[in-house]
Amino acid sequence: MAQQLADQRDLEFVIWEQFDNAKFLENEKYAAFNKKTCDMILKEGRKIAINEVLPTMAEGEQEGLEFKDGEVKTPECFKPAFELLKEGEWGNLAVPEEMGGQGAPHFIGSAVSEYMMAGNWPLNAYVSMGNGTADMIQKYGTEEQIKTYVKKLVSAEWGGTMLLTEPNAGSDVGALETTAVKNDDGTYSITGNKIFITNGEHDLNDNIIHPVLARVEGAPAGTKGISIFIVPKFFVNEDGSLGDRNDIWCTGIEHKHGIKTSATCSLAMGAKGTCIGYLLGEENQGMKIMFNMMNGARMHTGLQALSYASASYLLAVDYARERIQMRELGQPHDAPPVAIIKHPDVRRNLLWMKSYVGGMRSFYQYVDYQLENSHLAESEEERKLANDMYELLTPVIKSYLANRGYEVCVQAMQVYAGAGYTTDYLVEQYMRDCKIVSIYEGTCGIQAMDLLGRKMGMEGGKVFMTFLGEILKTVAAAKEVEATKDLAERVEGMVNKLGEVAAHLGKNAMSLNYKTAFAHSLPYLDAMGDTVMAWMLLWRALVASQKLEDKPKKKDLAFYEGQVKSAEFFIRTIGPVGLGRMNSILDLSSAAIDITDEGFGGL
Amino acid sequence: MAQQLADQRDLEFVIWEQFDNAKFLENEKYAAFNKKTCDMILKEGRKIAINEVLPTMAEGEQEGLEFKDGEVKTPECFKPAFELLKEGEWGNLAVPEEMGGQGAPHFIGSAVSEYMMAGNWPLNAYVSMGNGTADMIQKYGTEEQIKTYVKKLVSAEWGGTMLLTEPNAGSDVGALETTAVKNDDGTYSITGNKIFITNGEHDLNDNIIHPVLARVEGAPAGTKGISIFIVPKFFVNEDGSLGDRNDIWCTGIEHKHGIKTSATCSLAMGAKGTCIGYLLGEENQGMKIMFNMMNGARMHTGLQALSYASASYLLAVDYARERIQMRELGQPHDAPPVAIIKHPDVRRNLLWMKSYVGGMRSFYQYVDYQLENSHLAESEEERKLANDMYELLTPVIKSYLANRGYEVCVQAMQVYAGAGYTTDYLVEQYMRDCKIVSIYEGTCGIQAMDLLGRKMGMEGGKVFMTFLGEILKTVAAAKEVEATKDLAERVEGMVNKLGEVAAHLGKNAMSLNYKTAFAHSLPYLDAMGDTVMAWMLLWRALVASQKLEDKPKKKDLAFYEGQVKSAEFFIRTIGPVGLGRMNSILDLSSAAIDITDEGFGGL
Repeated sequence: MAQQLADQRDLEFVIWEQFDNAKFLENEKYAAFNKKTCDMILKEGRKIAINEVLPTMAEGEQEGLEFKDGEVKTPECFKPAFELLKEGEWGNLAVPEEMGGQGAPHFIGSAVSEYMMAGNWPLNAYVSMGNGTADMIQKYGTEEQIKTYVKKLVSAEWGGTMLLTEPNAGSDVGALETTAVKNDDGTYSITGNKIFITNGEHDLNDNIIHPVLARVEGAPAGTKGISIFIVPKFFVNEDGSLGDRNDIWCTGIEHKHGIKTSATCSLAMGAKGTCIGYLLGEENQGMKIMFNMMNGARMHTGLQALSYASASYLLAVDYARERIQMRELGQPHDAPPVAIIKHPDVRRNLLWMKSYVGGMRSFYQYVDYQLENSHLAESEEERKLANDMYELLTPVIKSYLANRGYEVCVQAMQVYAGAGYTTDYLVEQYMRDCKIVSIYEGTCGIQAMDLLGRKMGMEGGKVFMTFLGEILKTVAAAKEVEATKDLAERVEGMVNKLGEVAAHLGKNAMSLNYKTAFAHSLPYLDAMGDTVMAWMLLWRALVASQKLEDKPKKKDLAFYEGQVKSAEFFIRTIGPVGLGRMNSILDLSSAAIDITDEGFGGL
Repeated sequence: MAQQLADQRDLEFVIWEQFDNAKFLENEKYAAFNKKTCDMILKEGRKIAINEVLPTMAEGEQEGLEFKDGEVKTPECFKPAFELLKEGEWGNLAVPEEMGGQGAPHFIGSAVSEYMMAGNWPLNAYVSMGNGTADMIQKYGTEEQIKTYVKKLVSAEWGGTMLLTEPNAGSDVGALETTAVKNDDGTYSITGNKIFITNGEHDLNDNIIHPVLARVEGAPAGTKGISIFIVPKFFVNEDGSLGDRNDIWCTGIEHKHGIKTSATCSLAMGAKGTCIGYLLGEENQGMKIMFNMMNGARMHTGLQALSYASASYLLAVDYARERIQMRELGQPHDAPPVAIIKHPDVRRNLLWMKSYVGGMRSFYQYVDYQLENSHLAESEEERKLANDMYELLTPVIKSYLANRGYEVCVQAMQVYAGAGYTTDYLVEQYMRDCKIVSIYEGTCGIQAMDLLGRKMGMEGGKVFMTFLGEILKTVAAAKEVEATKDLAERVEGMVNKLGEVAAHLGKNAMSLNYKTAFAHSLPYLDAMGDTVMAWMLLWRALVASQKLEDKPKKKDLAFYEGQVKSAEFFIRTIGPVGLGRMNSILDLSSAAIDITDEGFGGL
């Protein structure tokens, strides 16, 4: 039976063999978990994702969302699956116990999320989006706010959102026009319109709690004058029951390229009567509080892209094993036709996909590991370093996984060829759904600016140097093993060149030539991502090579050899392209800045 | 007013300034055309594409196709536009007069097609798909067949198709199972099922003429035993009027990712009664006759991708000029927000798109120029050489334009960001529509096999050497001009490396290592495409530099400077990535061949 959604063996390899997640289980924070319980959770999550969640993906899209009289009706088939996930608390696996979650380690939460997201991302989001809102309230809310909202959000009884974007304030949050006027009772009256609000209105949760960015009368212009408010759809009575309807209404939903069952809402506040909001934290702290949620959101979107890519790859490799077409290359004309996995160009494509999916999964889990370490590492210094690494790599996770994940989805359609272009196979839907990741939670261009403008210079560049040093540790270990020695030397070449590129670009970013430097920021982010892929795959190959020395049985043998081949493929075939990209950044052409606006033509 | 579909100035530049198409107008074949009439046709075609065709694109998709009782109903809004294009004979501009066409030169036919395809490709296909069928009949049919079908196909009174694919015979044409049994009257009874038939059934043409690939009883297995038959939907009486319905019926249409208004039909022949077909040419000549049509079809799909890319680029650059968001980089926090075209990463993206669109347009017109030369060049030797160049470059046109054109469409959505992900803007539809090009008329993998397996070795490799020589001619000329000297040297480096890669790959393709060589065939095709882009853009820059010496007026100044900047951007920023790809091919990793089938995982 072919695997679905994510390759279980590969996930287990990353979690237990590549990274030492077992060490976290020794921490008292995770006393309730051991390797066996983690494996059980993963197995059970996988089963539910495949059997209960996945069947709703295509059917849900077929049925679609319905918007009528300010309400959004989700597909019928979502309801039982939603209840199942809610009852089983699958949405709050890695949320701390004190917030009502299961308190599981990050790695297991992410692994299960990979299955759930691949099974049906929009459904999963309805179940788990309250966590971000809850986290914000837990960190910045009053005791009463925490008591009122957090556990109901985490249990998915209520839903959570993030009301940031307005028609004239997308990437430019500081341009928002929603206003807040303080009332005598300490509440605020909110007036404004928000767009592109994921799950802003729908019928799966009893209540929806909206964190809303708005400007208090008289506050400074730009991002400095932004505050954040809790705006519940229904007011909450003192006993926790639901009270009156607040004046926040859905005015429409977007018709989109993909994630069509995820309600992307326009919301109007204070248009019919009075929309009441409760200040979260202090006035003008809105951006700080929101950014606290942003890193997590960016990590999650990266995981979303990975999960689509992983599911698409498995579909493609399965199709390639079953689809019979043409004789094998080099065989006589009357030779029987073979499965297309035998054809060299199909193999190249599949290994291209496999190496990216594996590399991205390891990358994601590596950054998750840093996040865990930022809380659990023994020394303050280690914790600080882990957090810095997490901060440095988050924009790369977001942008690189978005773009490469999408390309994997596109190549999966290519393996299916004509059949893949029809809506009969899920590869078509995965591809459309995946495209959103490069856009929301900050476009790839925004991530690249964040990386070059803020993250590269963290601690005077020391965080980045530590990052390079971490890669070189793996390189040094891999050089000691015959099977990985040559690959390690190649990765060393990439790391050294990346360091050179970073220095050159950083210097220019702080000079009069800064515009040109920023015109190369996204290629630079990609170069960094390429290097991380090479690193992660080398690391995998190193672990696999060591396992191969113990003469594993047949299935493990194929798995471990597959790791070595993936690393070889990526480092020797994609690596040189990455080096070429680095050369182009070093050359730092200013053509994109120099060309006049009229020179773009079309006038 | 912003331009739409294709940049008129750019098209004129390619046609008249970059290539010497004027010389063809001196040929008696084109006595009816001069530069002025060509410009008029182009201008009028553009107007119709923008005003009459484009409005049907989104509306047609909204309305959709309807399949009922074996019939396909096209969108209502298609009907008047179809009649207009048919009456104006816009579909047969470059079809020879003796076939009932307008007899215009290729370059003008292609330029107008770029507008029409970008306006609404499926509608355009309903109008012009009869040309391919007509061409086949004109070349291989009997006098009676020519008289019966050709002019009605060319006038779009009747439609044409190509019945090749079957459920188990896609890329593997030789596996087809449709049979033909000869009747006493010389006709054949056809039995079989075809799928993925573009315009196989619809309500815009009075009759549809299907060329059908089938195997005559007792014919050899594989491609050698395939014959081609003319199967009309309605039989044609001696006086040219329509007679009885033939037994070829549409059994369903595909639901697709894009080109949703193009009817992709399943057709059953001989299932209800007797389906009669008329042999075209001789028995077992089917593949030869079909291949005759194939090159043209592959060229057209390349043009299709270019037209989507061109239209998407113009939409993106227009949006970037109008969308106000964020202050300019380096400006103080309270600086006013600017149009996003001012942001470095957006400029990089736009120039990336612009350079590809320009390079692809020149490439397409260059190959079209070769096609024209293959008929009109003075000496037999020149004509042969031009035809060889056309043959060599057709798979590159098909695959490279498909993939890069698609990426341009994807980047256009990225410029629109969240708005682009909705169905409110055409960039969303262009992107979906464009994906088909990498799949049909032979996937990109098939094109790469054709290039490496058949085309590279043409005339013992001489054709390819001539191709490199042609690039070096441009390089030599550009080296003489100060503005292009540095760029020319870089392109020279690419050409020399491409030659090295080709030799290395060719040697391996003919050795025991052939599977590994073919695993690099698509990257090789891309490397060749990259080099062609660099060549075409250098050529553009060279022409523009010369024009700049004459101190052109403001609008031309911006246009010509834009050409130089596009070339600089591509050659210095994408060129090194291309060189990296060539390095990876030289390294020729065999990982994709060595990995076991099990090693791909997912089992």
